[in-house]
Amino acid sequence: MSSHRASSSVITLYDLKGGSGSSQPWAPNIWRVRFILNYKRLRYRTVWVDFPDVESILSSLGAPPSSFRSNGRPVYTLPVLVDPSRNPGRPLILSNTNNISEYLEATYPSKPVFPPGSRALQSLYAHYIQEVLAKPLLPLLVPLSHQQLDHRSQSYFRAPGGLTGPPSSATNQPLPPGPERERQWLQAKEQFDFLDSILAKNVGDGDGIVAMGFEVSYADFALCSVLMWIRQVALHDGWSRIQHWNGGRWEQLWQKCSPYMDNH
Amino acid sequence: MSSHRASSSVITLYDLKGGSGSSQPWAPNIWRVRFILNYKRLRYRTVWVDFPDVESILSSLGAPPSSFRSNGRPVYTLPVLVDPSRNPGRPLILSNTNNISEYLEATYPSKPVFPPGSRALQSLYAHYIQEVLAKPLLPLLVPLSHQQLDHRSQSYFRAPGGLTGPPSSATNQPLPPGPERERQWLQAKEQFDFLDSILAKNVGDGDGIVAMGFEVSYADFALCSVLMWIRQVALHDGWSRIQHWNGGRWEQLWQKCSPYMDNH
Repeated sequence: MSSHRASSSVITLYDLKGGSGSSQPWAPNIWRVRFILNYKRLRYRTVWVDFPDVESILSSLGAPPSSFRSNGRPVYTLPVLVDPSRNPGRPLILSNTNNISEYLEATYPSKPVFPPGSRALQSLYAHYIQEVLAKPLLPLLVPLSHQQLDHRSQSYFRAPGGLTGPPSSATNQPLPPGPERERQWLQAKEQFDFLDSILAKNVGDGDGIVAMGFEVSYADFALCSVLMWIRQVALHDGWSRIQHWNGGRWEQLWQKCSPYMDNH
Repeated sequence: MSSHRASSSVITLYDLKGGSGSSQPWAPNIWRVRFILNYKRLRYRTVWVDFPDVESILSSLGAPPSSFRSNGRPVYTLPVLVDPSRNPGRPLILSNTNNISEYLEATYPSKPVFPPGSRALQSLYAHYIQEVLAKPLLPLLVPLSHQQLDHRSQSYFRAPGGLTGPPSSATNQPLPPGPERERQWLQAKEQFDFLDSILAKNVGDGDGIVAMGFEVSYADFALCSVLMWIRQVALHDGWSRIQHWNGGRWEQLWQKCSPYMDNH
């Protein structure tokens, strides 16, 4: 564990391991935290966790559960962030994307992601992205995300006790090319069209690309996290569509966020 | 029409006449415009229109329809705003709350309701208020609003050709006291509870009451317009509940907006 000790004063981000053992971040909730860390130029290392190990690793770490099942059993989800900078002997362990985001902003206020007085409006925007805009993407992207996991994680999801697995393995099958898939993409496009009309209101009062004028902020990271997911799991039948929608707005947003995609 | 001529350089707001011939504004969409006019201290007069006369008055005025039915017939709704200030001989006639709001901000930029770079986020917030937060209030408030209209307007709604009338007169009956009404108020409360958690994010970065920090803005007017509707049609079984929810947050918001409830 010398590598752990060597970096014990550095923030640790627990992230979900991608397909075939690769360490490409893909989960949108975790990207939101990753964007903030990169934007604030905070030093951090990533611990990659396989799906079947999330519960055992997080409970042994003493991470707070995200929620509890009706039978009282705790539910553990990523991201989890460990920050030893204030007290190396007893590092702070945080779960839940919103909590972590608010903690990072309060603790590392330079390069704010919430310009003054914008927390409420940005939080509602992020909620909207997650609960409304991303909804029609789920039947398209969840099976593709599943397909890119390694064999052990896929089996875990197919097992009836799988942590957040769908009830039947049938839903793990990607939609084949054809009218059903096209209908689903059309529903996704309707959501993007609406958000396009909202963001266009900033033309003349901003660049019309980012949510708050000219500078990227939390709201943009919330949306770009979804774009990152689409690119990662559906580059050819997903991102290649979306990047041309709404006059290229989403490609432009992706470009605006691209300086904050790498850990410095 | 001398009164019209005398005030021909003044903005005119077309609003829906309230119950029993009273001229108390109640419709939330129109309140949103009224708040902006009052906040910017613009001089305007109100023309009160009965529901059955909306179409004939607006079409003879040459107001733009809000939308078109599938058979091509135009749909006219209030608010409509007439502004002769730039060209008294050919006044500008606008319909649709969002259009009117954006026009007023662009034309009368002092005392902005959209602080720089906030148009997109505030517009999404207003959309959310109207489409999500206000939804469970409809079965509670629409029949009460109907009941307060005068006899002619009530009959108009009951007629099958009524402009936006519900399909059956049964839906015009207010929910009687009892478990069904309580369930409906509980659904409304869940929406307010969620918005409370969003607005609370501004505590420490604002007063935690208004949407953008310390100063009222368009987002607050959008929400307070719904509160005005509740107070106007359901003072005892509506506002008396809501004003105590979430630590009195909604009463406090109402107070924050109260300086902008009167035409100066």
